[in-house]
Amino acid sequence: MARPTPAEIIARDAADPLAAFRDRFALPDGVIYLDGNSLGPLPRATAARMARVIEGEWGTGLIRSWNEHDWIGAPQRIGGKIGRLIGAAPGTVIATDSTSVNLFKLIVAATALSPERGTILTEAGNFPTDLHVARQAAALLGKRLRVCDTADLENAIDADTALIVLAHVHYRSGHRHDMAAITAHAAAHGARVLWDLSHSVGAVPLALAADGVELAVGCGYKYLNGGPGAPAFLHVAGHLHERMQSPIAGWLGHAAPFDFADAYRPAPGVDRFLAGTPPMLSLLALEAGVDLMLAADQAALHAKARDLHDLFAADVAAECPALTRISPDEAERRGSHIAFVHSDAFAIMQALIARGVIGDFRSPDVLRFGLTPLYLRHRDIRDAVTILSDIITGEHWRDPRFFIRDRVT
Amino acid sequence: MARPTPAEIIARDAADPLAAFRDRFALPDGVIYLDGNSLGPLPRATAARMARVIEGEWGTGLIRSWNEHDWIGAPQRIGGKIGRLIGAAPGTVIATDSTSVNLFKLIVAATALSPERGTILTEAGNFPTDLHVARQAAALLGKRLRVCDTADLENAIDADTALIVLAHVHYRSGHRHDMAAITAHAAAHGARVLWDLSHSVGAVPLALAADGVELAVGCGYKYLNGGPGAPAFLHVAGHLHERMQSPIAGWLGHAAPFDFADAYRPAPGVDRFLAGTPPMLSLLALEAGVDLMLAADQAALHAKARDLHDLFAADVAAECPALTRISPDEAERRGSHIAFVHSDAFAIMQALIARGVIGDFRSPDVLRFGLTPLYLRHRDIRDAVTILSDIITGEHWRDPRFFIRDRVT
Repeated sequence: MARPTPAEIIARDAADPLAAFRDRFALPDGVIYLDGNSLGPLPRATAARMARVIEGEWGTGLIRSWNEHDWIGAPQRIGGKIGRLIGAAPGTVIATDSTSVNLFKLIVAATALSPERGTILTEAGNFPTDLHVARQAAALLGKRLRVCDTADLENAIDADTALIVLAHVHYRSGHRHDMAAITAHAAAHGARVLWDLSHSVGAVPLALAADGVELAVGCGYKYLNGGPGAPAFLHVAGHLHERMQSPIAGWLGHAAPFDFADAYRPAPGVDRFLAGTPPMLSLLALEAGVDLMLAADQAALHAKARDLHDLFAADVAAECPALTRISPDEAERRGSHIAFVHSDAFAIMQALIARGVIGDFRSPDVLRFGLTPLYLRHRDIRDAVTILSDIITGEHWRDPRFFIRDRVT
Repeated sequence: MARPTPAEIIARDAADPLAAFRDRFALPDGVIYLDGNSLGPLPRATAARMARVIEGEWGTGLIRSWNEHDWIGAPQRIGGKIGRLIGAAPGTVIATDSTSVNLFKLIVAATALSPERGTILTEAGNFPTDLHVARQAAALLGKRLRVCDTADLENAIDADTALIVLAHVHYRSGHRHDMAAITAHAAAHGARVLWDLSHSVGAVPLALAADGVELAVGCGYKYLNGGPGAPAFLHVAGHLHERMQSPIAGWLGHAAPFDFADAYRPAPGVDRFLAGTPPMLSLLALEAGVDLMLAADQAALHAKARDLHDLFAADVAAECPALTRISPDEAERRGSHIAFVHSDAFAIMQALIARGVIGDFRSPDVLRFGLTPLYLRHRDIRDAVTILSDIITGEHWRDPRFFIRDRVT
């Protein structure tokens, strides 16, 4: 990859059709934020919206806001907006609970669709919550969890496979599965796929309906900039709604929650996967993040993400030969973050953060950088790699304070 | 019950040791808010705290706030504070997920403690989420859900009972179970009780450890004033921690979430019942509400709740003979709300709300009023019943607009 000159970097930023979005985020001075794949930054509109929600809707509206500000419709309304981002049909997405809880609900409900099949399949090295939730759900259902290497995945799908739980983009390596191909391959064997879109939504092109995707979950606090621990979402294709039932039959998944009936009657459509009362402050902050993402041209977003990745990769290849890139070369096979391995990745990341470049470390040896086109410029990438290179070539990360592992994220 | 004179009402408010708390809430003008048992009002400190959380901790701190502002410890920290309110031992409560999801987790995990027992028991007319979640969980586990009338409850507990799911205070009638007696009676039959404290916490005296309570869940957005849809909490007594496993094995319930290990190792203690990343904005708003509740003298709180109930009951008995009270007479057997039945309860409540008195309607025929001592005065009760009496005696609720049932709460 040819490295752009400083003048070319400036020209690219000047020509960036998304450049105006940067000012719509409250980014602190002195920071190059390359961790939007872990926690997206604060959109300015969110701060204003939340002040109105807290003081106006909650403070003044009180209980009336469930109707007057349509809090009650928020899971469906926000789900519908996320549905537009991921190419899902209207009425097939709700914003609710956490990714972990949504995984559990859909694993149990989808596995029940194939009672004669005994296996839930996933891949080794998947994000832990996917693996652990799948394992416990399988145990509860008396099914087998089969964990296979990614290379063996297609061969592992057989007539006993009820459900395959896959992260579309891998949280460490950035490897992106071929969603349409795997979904079709699974369907040819009578199996379903539950896609975890946590590292895809807002990051790479998604077309769930076109790709035949029946089941998906995803995260609100990464590329959607929904705030710390923002509620997650789930998608169930329309033809499955009436055949599936949530294992967590909370009152808001009832057809008529305010009838307070002793008998359970699941809501029509995807609403049956609601459970308890949603955490409205967090949910409405998510909506502001989704609204901002929807305002951006998605093709421009994905094109810029590719450019930022190529720039980061070329700069590191030239300036930091000690780092080995593990995120894929091919744009179609990767997400919107770039990842490298180094035996002292933890200390290098601490040294970087101390210099104002915030990425993250993923155990045991990965440096991970989120490349988020809404607010990052090409010059941020160039500057970040310059600092990274200085730390590595000067061995500044060898300072003992960078090895203190009391950090939890 | 003797009715206090207007002068006595004024004297009671003047002598109220909790009077200063009213100013710590952002109550709108022209409203008497008797729905704090459905959604508690906004504490002023919460608005200020949330501005700092959103602009400072999220906006400026970004991902670093998981450590630097101890977001990661929030479920345990806030759980510990709730634990003080409910008389639970330290390290036995976490704030997490919704009441529905927590019910599911504990029903499944607790039933597994008694594999030889086949029945989960609950009472008819329980809050729907308790009933529905228990029914679906029982189906998933291959157990029987037995739903009995409250009067038959003690007799229904037998050698086949694995778990009893009970609301401590009933959401409609306000009936309060004898927690210690039922827990002991169940234990004598080798059965466990899972208490739903949604209408108890912050409302009536609770002493979980002293009463031998092993399992409980509860709601953050009612008497705790945690905000709309605030996260819920769960309690598991210490001696059960290592014997129970959450059915939803999300990554934050892992002993070392940031090791990202393929093998699941549940966290020590009650932390194993964490699932996904918590909705931090909603969770920190809950903390501000809990902090305010903890600042109040609990004995004064409960004494005032009793007084407000007695005043409301006496005023209605004198002024509104058309209403039949269903909340119990005896203070020890009721919660902190008062409830009446009337065949046109829906329209009466709409007429009341139009006059600025906010209570709520519970299908099919219940008028429910939350009596929340932190911010209600005796004069608010007197004024509310005066308006209620005017509506009923003048038949003002017969206006057709009060019969339009498009409201969801």
